[in-house]
Amino acid sequence: MDLLKNKILSEGVVLSDNVLKVDKFLNHQIDPELMVEIGKEFHSRFKDTEITKVLTLESSGIAPAVMTALNFNVPAVFARKRKSLTFTDDLLSAQVFSYTKQETNMISVSNQFIQPGDNILIIDDFLANGEAAGALINIVEQAKANVSGIGIVIEKSFQSGAAILKEKNYRVESLARIESLSNHTVTFAGDNE
Amino acid sequence: MDLLKNKILSEGVVLSDNVLKVDKFLNHQIDPELMVEIGKEFHSRFKDTEITKVLTLESSGIAPAVMTALNFNVPAVFARKRKSLTFTDDLLSAQVFSYTKQETNMISVSNQFIQPGDNILIIDDFLANGEAAGALINIVEQAKANVSGIGIVIEKSFQSGAAILKEKNYRVESLARIESLSNHTVTFAGDNE
Repeated sequence: MDLLKNKILSEGVVLSDNVLKVDKFLNHQIDPELMVEIGKEFHSRFKDTEITKVLTLESSGIAPAVMTALNFNVPAVFARKRKSLTFTDDLLSAQVFSYTKQETNMISVSNQFIQPGDNILIIDDFLANGEAAGALINIVEQAKANVSGIGIVIEKSFQSGAAILKEKNYRVESLARIESLSNHTVTFAGDNE
Repeated sequence: MDLLKNKILSEGVVLSDNVLKVDKFLNHQIDPELMVEIGKEFHSRFKDTEITKVLTLESSGIAPAVMTALNFNVPAVFARKRKSLTFTDDLLSAQVFSYTKQETNMISVSNQFIQPGDNILIIDDFLANGEAAGALINIVEQAKANVSGIGIVIEKSFQSGAAILKEKNYRVESLARIESLSNHTVTFAGDNE
């Protein structure tokens, strides 16, 4: 997706060989027009698939997930990292380690919102080692729902997540695939568009 | 906003005299079409005002904030509750107590994304005692930017937040104003549409 790649090149900041900062348009400040285009692009890639819900993880996945759900005319659900007084249903939970935050979180979804037979499109902002995606898959499978696909805004292809997910036969569509962040430079992998 | 009020009546759950659970369409599962309409409604209410950025707080404010920012053709920024390895700029921070989570958080925004002279529309999902809105105002004022207005999806008018903000001459627009949650029943206040 050229619009996204150009945005990464113009506004992304390479902090190290494996950390790309995209706080200007995705992770802290959000470019709403870009989110609209990301939603359309995920729809175009998965429109041949049955999708009944979009699932993401708070917080940076919410904007792309909602824009994608809008195109499919289905609800979006975000897994929560923390408890709340209003979070009183039976929960589906899984552990996820965040490299950028250096902590392990238990993420949870109310069992009310993922039902047996649901066809779930998982959306996330980044795919690195596949920790978050793996936890979301775990939750979907606990609910006896199906993972229809996994849509990633930025895949760091030099880390193991994409390969692990594809090996398990999940369909992964990444809008920008980064081959390397070496020398403070973003190098994209061959596009899968 | 009738669409929202009907949604609250049909899908909201009154947990106690001051807690309304709206996990089915706003706080955990998100209705994307409703978010589109909320974005249009905030635009219609604040369109006479100069807005250069929309500011919210993760996580439940993100969807309405992004849809609102889209209508104003400006970026959305969400204050973060936690640190991240990629969160390396100088930060504007303020404390906020969450009643529903029973904890005090330090929320932060990179000083890169709110600049002196910015005209900020603050958007949040709920207004109760005004803790979150107060912390966001504090951050905007630290940055020497202006608060152009405060847009709230659901105001609990029987708590003190709205009155406190209006007393300080902030312009508050709430899309649904709840007068009471007594007897497990939602009673709306007179509409300010």
